Amino acid sequence: MKYFYVFALCLVFGLKPDLVQAQKASWIWYPGDFDIWMSNKMQNRRTERGSFLPPFWKMDSHYVLVDFHKEFDLDKAEEVKLYVEGQYNVKIDGQALTGYPKTISIPAGHHKLSLKVYAQDRVPSILVKGTKVVSDDTWLATFEDKEWIDASGKVSDKSGTIFVSAGSWNMTDPLMPPSKFQLPVVPAFAVNKTKQDKGLISDFGKETFGFIKLHGLKGKGKLNIYYGESKEEALSKDHCETLDLLELDISGVKDSVMALSKAFRYVNCQPEGNVSLDSVSMLYEYAPVTEKGSFACSDPQINKIYDVAKYTFHLNTREFFIDGIKRDRWVWSGDAYQSYLMNYYSFFDSPTVKRTLLAQRGKDPVTAHINTIMDYSFYWFLGINDYYQFTGDKKFIVDVYPRMKALMDYVLGRRNKDGLLEWMPGDWIFIDWADGLSKDGAVSFEQLLFCRSLESMALCADMAGDKDGAANYGQLATELKAKIFKLYWNENKHALVHSRIDGKATDNVTRYANMFGIFFNYFNPAQKLEVKQHVLLNDKVNKITTPYMRFYELEALCAMGEQDYVLKEMKDYWGGMLNLGATSFWEEYNPAKKGTEHLAMYARPFGKSLCHAWGASPIYLLGKYYLGVKPLSPGYETYEIEPALGGLQWMEGKVPVPGGEIAVYCSKKEIKVKSASGKGLLKFKSNSKPSVKGGVIVAKGNGSYELSVEKGKDYTVKYSI
Amino acid sequence: MKYFYVFALCLVFGLKPDLVQAQKASWIWYPGDFDIWMSNKMQNRRTERGSFLPPFWKMDSHYVLVDFHKEFDLDKAEEVKLYVEGQYNVKIDGQALTGYPKTISIPAGHHKLSLKVYAQDRVPSILVKGTKVVSDDTWLATFEDKEWIDASGKVSDKSGTIFVSAGSWNMTDPLMPPSKFQLPVVPAFAVNKTKQDKGLISDFGKETFGFIKLHGLKGKGKLNIYYGESKEEALSKDHCETLDLLELDISGVKDSVMALSKAFRYVNCQPEGNVSLDSVSMLYEYAPVTEKGSFACSDPQINKIYDVAKYTFHLNTREFFIDGIKRDRWVWSGDAYQSYLMNYYSFFDSPTVKRTLLAQRGKDPVTAHINTIMDYSFYWFLGINDYYQFTGDKKFIVDVYPRMKALMDYVLGRRNKDGLLEWMPGDWIFIDWADGLSKDGAVSFEQLLFCRSLESMALCADMAGDKDGAANYGQLATELKAKIFKLYWNENKHALVHSRIDGKATDNVTRYANMFGIFFNYFNPAQKLEVKQHVLLNDKVNKITTPYMRFYELEALCAMGEQDYVLKEMKDYWGGMLNLGATSFWEEYNPAKKGTEHLAMYARPFGKSLCHAWGASPIYLLGKYYLGVKPLSPGYETYEIEPALGGLQWMEGKVPVPGGEIAVYCSKKEIKVKSASGKGLLKFKSNSKPSVKGGVIVAKGNGSYELSVEKGKDYTVKYSI
Repeated sequence: MKYFYVFALCLVFGLKPDLVQAQKASWIWYPGDFDIWMSNKMQNRRTERGSFLPPFWKMDSHYVLVDFHKEFDLDKAEEVKLYVEGQYNVKIDGQALTGYPKTISIPAGHHKLSLKVYAQDRVPSILVKGTKVVSDDTWLATFEDKEWIDASGKVSDKSGTIFVSAGSWNMTDPLMPPSKFQLPVVPAFAVNKTKQDKGLISDFGKETFGFIKLHGLKGKGKLNIYYGESKEEALSKDHCETLDLLELDISGVKDSVMALSKAFRYVNCQPEGNVSLDSVSMLYEYAPVTEKGSFACSDPQINKIYDVAKYTFHLNTREFFIDGIKRDRWVWSGDAYQSYLMNYYSFFDSPTVKRTLLAQRGKDPVTAHINTIMDYSFYWFLGINDYYQFTGDKKFIVDVYPRMKALMDYVLGRRNKDGLLEWMPGDWIFIDWADGLSKDGAVSFEQLLFCRSLESMALCADMAGDKDGAANYGQLATELKAKIFKLYWNENKHALVHSRIDGKATDNVTRYANMFGIFFNYFNPAQKLEVKQHVLLNDKVNKITTPYMRFYELEALCAMGEQDYVLKEMKDYWGGMLNLGATSFWEEYNPAKKGTEHLAMYARPFGKSLCHAWGASPIYLLGKYYLGVKPLSPGYETYEIEPALGGLQWMEGKVPVPGGEIAVYCSKKEIKVKSASGKGLLKFKSNSKPSVKGGVIVAKGNGSYELSVEKGKDYTVKYSI
Repeated sequence: MKYFYVFALCLVFGLKPDLVQAQKASWIWYPGDFDIWMSNKMQNRRTERGSFLPPFWKMDSHYVLVDFHKEFDLDKAEEVKLYVEGQYNVKIDGQALTGYPKTISIPAGHHKLSLKVYAQDRVPSILVKGTKVVSDDTWLATFEDKEWIDASGKVSDKSGTIFVSAGSWNMTDPLMPPSKFQLPVVPAFAVNKTKQDKGLISDFGKETFGFIKLHGLKGKGKLNIYYGESKEEALSKDHCETLDLLELDISGVKDSVMALSKAFRYVNCQPEGNVSLDSVSMLYEYAPVTEKGSFACSDPQINKIYDVAKYTFHLNTREFFIDGIKRDRWVWSGDAYQSYLMNYYSFFDSPTVKRTLLAQRGKDPVTAHINTIMDYSFYWFLGINDYYQFTGDKKFIVDVYPRMKALMDYVLGRRNKDGLLEWMPGDWIFIDWADGLSKDGAVSFEQLLFCRSLESMALCADMAGDKDGAANYGQLATELKAKIFKLYWNENKHALVHSRIDGKATDNVTRYANMFGIFFNYFNPAQKLEVKQHVLLNDKVNKITTPYMRFYELEALCAMGEQDYVLKEMKDYWGGMLNLGATSFWEEYNPAKKGTEHLAMYARPFGKSLCHAWGASPIYLLGKYYLGVKPLSPGYETYEIEPALGGLQWMEGKVPVPGGEIAVYCSKKEIKVKSASGKGLLKFKSNSKPSVKGGVIVAKGNGSYELSVEKGKDYTVKYSI
C-alpha cells in the first residue's frame, strides 16, 4: 500500500518510482572474497575428538586491498554515510578527503565516488548509504587499479586496470558487517533427560545442530561433554566423534554457551571434581532460507521420507552447502552439486549456490582439483551449468567465466597421451565410497564428467563472449564423446566398461558411467535400453550403498520412466533408514548391516555421518520426476510438467521457479497445474479423452497429450490412467 | 670460552659439539609469507595530509592454512614446548593430540612431528623448542598437503604434495611472534624549540624517523601537528605532506605517543581551544643492522658525503628496503635494487635483501609488473643475480627460482612481434623522473634490462637444476643481445639510440641504455670509448637530475676508470646538497634550482622526499670503485681489490664479505689489505718497483702489478703513483 501511494505520487509528478524510492544499500566486496573468507572460517571449525581438523587442500585468501567506485548523476547534493571494514580512503572525483570520514557530502551533478580499503583479517567491504548514492553490485571493484603518477606529476588513469562488478549478498545492516556475519539461532530444549554416573544425558528428540548451553554450572573441576548423533555415540567416551573437555573453576552459579557449534541428538555431560550443572539446552542454528518447494502424496511413508529429507537438507544448508553437520562440515564439490539440485526443488536459494561455487573455486593459480578430487572439479562445472538452467542468471555466468577457464586450463593440462584423464600425483579419484572400486587407469566415469564439463564450458564461453573458446570447447567435447564410445562401449556387455588400463579397456562393468550416460543423454535409445537391462536392473553389477550414488542411479531410472520401480526403491532404502529410527538421512546405508554396524565408517565405530546432505535426494527426485517439473530453457522461460505417480494414488506439490512457483496436483483422474511465470508444457498420458477448461489439449498419439500452460492461469485436466 | 669448555668436554666424551649444544629454535612460516604480510602492513602505513594512501598494485596474502613437519631421531625422550600463531593441531607420527597442547613429550626413536596451523589475520607460524626438536628452516612446509582418506578409511600420504623449506628470520623469542614484529625504538630529543602562534616548533637537528611523543598534554580542543623535512614544510599548514589532526579532551595531564611513525626534522604543534602541551620528543625507530662497511679519506667533504649517505641509507633500511621515509615508504623494486648494492658495502644484511625480494614478488598469478613498472620487474631479476654474486647463497636461489620463472613467463608473454618489449595496458615504463623522456615504442633501456634478466634466469635455472630452462633462457638472451645491437646501435651517433617506434629506430640518444651497456659489459672496448665520449661526457645529451640514475651514470664512468672525474661529480652533486643544508640525501637534486624550488616535486611544494635511499649511492661507489673491492666469484670466494684514489691523498675502509670483512688502506705510497676470507687479487699500478712482505707481486706490464691475497694475512705494499 505504501509503495502504491508513492507510485501514485510519482504519476502525479511524472517521476519514475525508482528515482523517488531510496535504494537499498548493501555491503559490497571484491566478488568471491567474502565467500572465500567465510568458507575458510567455516571449514576450519572441524574438530575430531577435540583436535582441530582442517581441510587438506589449499585455502585461499581475499584480496587485502580493494578499490571500489561508481559514478553518479545527482539532481541535488546529498549526504552519504560510509561504513567500512578496514582502513580506507575516500575520493570524490579523484580528490582524497582527509582522514576516515563517516559522513560525506556529494554535490549535485556528475561525480565519481571511490573508496579504497585495506584489511588483512577481514574482507575489505563497504556500505555506502545516501539517497541515490548507495552501494550495491552495480559498483565496480578492482584489486589493482593502475592509476599512476606520470613524470609531470599528473595523476591519470590508464587502461589495463580490470574492474569487475562488486560482490554482494544483500547484507544491508550497517552494524552487521560481513566480518560479523552469522546464522541466526533460536533456543531449543531437550525432550528427555536421564542421569548416568555423575552426569546427565539430554536427548533433543532428533538430529539437530547448534551451540550447547549449560545451565546452573558451578564448582571446580572438569566437565566432559560427549556428543552423539546416536545414543551409543554419546555414551562412548572413547569413540564419540566430537567432544568438549572443559576445565572449570566457577564461583557462584553461571550459564555458559559453548563457542563451537556441534551436531547431535544426544549430549552426555560428565562432571568431575565438585562440578555440577542443572540442565542442558541449545541454541539451534539455522540458515534463514524459505521453504518454497513442497510435496505431499497418498503414501504416508513417502511423505515422511520427504519431510526428513527436507530437514536433513536444511540442516546441511548453512553458510554454504556442506556435506554433513557432525564431522567435516566442509564444502565438498560433489556433495554440494547434489545440494544445488535439491535446492532448486526446495529453497531455490541462489545466493547459497553462488557462495558455494565461489568458495570451492577459490583463487588462481589452480594447483589442484577442487577438494583435490578429479570428479569434484567436474561437478563444479556441471553445477554452474545447472545453475544457469534453473535460474537463467546470465550475469553470474559471465562473472564466473574467467574462473571456469582457469580451472579448465588446469584440467586440460593433465590429459594423458590419449587425451584422457587418469590419476596423477596429487589427484584423488573418488567416484564413490565402495569396497574394491578400481581407480586405476582412465576411468570411463571421469571421462563422461570431463565431456559434460567441456560442453558446459562451450555454453558459458558463448555467453561470456569468448567465441573462440566456445568453438574450441565444443570441438573438444565432440571429440571426447566420440572417443568415449569408441574406447569404452562394449557390445557384448551392452555397457560402458569401467576403465582403460595401459591403453586397453577392461571388461569390468560398474554402474557409474552407465547411469550418467543416461541422464546426460549420451546413449542412443537402444543403448539406453541395453544399459537399463544389463546394468541398472542387473543385480550382478555391484550395488551402490551410498545415497550419494543412489541419487544418480535412481535419476537414471526415472529418466527412463521407471518411477514405479524407483518409488519402491525409495521406500525400501530411505524407508529402511526411517525404520531404524533415523531422524535425518545418512552418509551411507547398507541394508545388509545390523545394529551398531550402521553407525561405523572409516574404521571408526561412530565415523559415519547420520545427517548428510546427499541423503536428501528424494526432494529432487520427487520434484523433478514425480511432480515432473523441469526447465526446458534457462530460468524456466519454458518448462515441462510431466507428472508421474509411480504407483501413488495422488500427489501435490510446488516447485519454485524464478518469480514464483509451479503448483501441481495429480491423481489418477485429475491434473491441476498453475505457474507463476514462463511458458509451460504439461505432458501426460490418458486412457480416455482428456478435457480442460481454458486451454487446448493436443493429442500426440499413443495416448499421449500435451497442454500449453500460460502463467497465472489455473488448469484442471480431467483424464484417466 | 664457554664454547671452548663445551667443546673440550665433547672431546672427552667423544661427542660432536652440535649434538650437545641446544639448537636455536626460530619462528618459522611458509617461505615468503611473513615477508608478504609484513610488507602489506608496512606499505599500508602511507598517509598524505591525513588521508590513507595505499599502493596501487595488487597486494597478496599469506597462505592461511599451512602444515609444518620434520622427522627426528632422538636418543632419548624429550619435552618440547610449542608456540603457535593461529589455530592448530599437533600430530606425532600422524596421530593427532587432543586440543591445543603447549607442551608435548616425544619418545626416543625416529618420529615425525607435524603442526597444522590456520590463521587469517596473521601468518601461520610456529616456534618449537625442545633439545633436539627445534623449529628452523630445515623443517618442511606445505599449503596443501594431500594426505587423504582412501575407501578403506586408512589415512595415507600420496606423492603430489609439494613441500618446501620453511621460512625463518631468526626470530627466537617465543613471546615475540611474527605478528608482533616491530623495529626497536630509542627516545630522542629536539635540539631547538621555538614558540610560534599558540604553538611550538621543535627542531630535531637533522632528518629523522619515528613516533612523536607529546609531553604534558592537557585541555579540550584540537591539536594539529604538521611535520616537515624542511622548516618551510612544517610551517606550511596547507601543504606539508604529513600531519596529524587530533581531537582532545583530557582531564589532568598526560603524555601521548602517536600511533603512526613519521619522517621529519621539524614538528610544528598548533593547539586550538584550551589545549596545551609542554614539549615534544620522539621515539627514534631504526633497523638493528650492523654497520660493517666503512670509508674515510683525506677529503673531509667526501667523508661527510659518505656519513650522510650512510645515515640516509640506514633511515631507509627498515622492515624492508624502502624508497624514502617521508612519503611512500613502499617497497619499490628499482629503488630497492640500488639499496641491495649499497647494503653489500655497508650492512651486508642478507635477510633484509631476501625479505624485500620476496615481498616484491608476492604470490602467483603474476598479473602485472612489479610495482606495475616494466623496468622494476627486471631490477628484481638483477637483484637476485647480484645477491648470489655477493653472498654465494645458492639455497635462496633454488628456493626463489619458481617465483622467478613465473614472473619471466609473464614477461615473455608480453613481447611484441619483434620479440621486444614495449608498453602494454597496465604497464608503467618508468626509467627515470625526467622531463620529456619518451616512453613510446620499444625503448632500448628496457631491452637491455630484459636481456640481463634472461642471463640471470639462465644462471639461476642452472643452479635450480632446470637444465632445459637454463638452455632456453641462455639462447633467448644471446638472440636478444644481438638484436639490441642490430636494431639500436647507431654508427653515426656512436651510441645506442633511445627507442624504436613503429618498427623504426629513432635517432634520439639518451644516457640510460648507454651507461648500462658499459657496466653490463655489452659493448666492445671501442664502443665503450665511443659511448664515453659521445654520451657520458657529452653535455648535449640530456643531463640526469636524480641521484637514482646518477648512480648508474657514475658507475659507468668508474667502470671506465674515470674515478677522478666521478670524485669531482660527487663533490659537486652530493656536496651541492650538503651546501644547501641537507642532513640526508634527496630524491632529486637539480643544481639549477633555487631556494624552496628544491623542496617541490610532483607539482606539490613539499612533494619531494629529502631522505631517499637512492640518494645514498656514494656508499656503493666508494666501496666498489675507490676501495675497489668486488667479488669475482659468488660469495667472494675469489675477489678483486683495485684501489683508485681518484685524486684523494689517502683513503681507508672496510668492505663486508661473508664471514668477515676486507680492510683496505691506500695512499700514494702504500696499500694495505687484509681479508677475512676468500682468495683475493690486489691490482694496482706503480711508477716504481713495488715491494711487499709475505707475498709475491707479479708485474703485468705497463706499470701494472698484481698481488695474491690470502685470508687472514696482513699485506703492506710499498709503491708510488
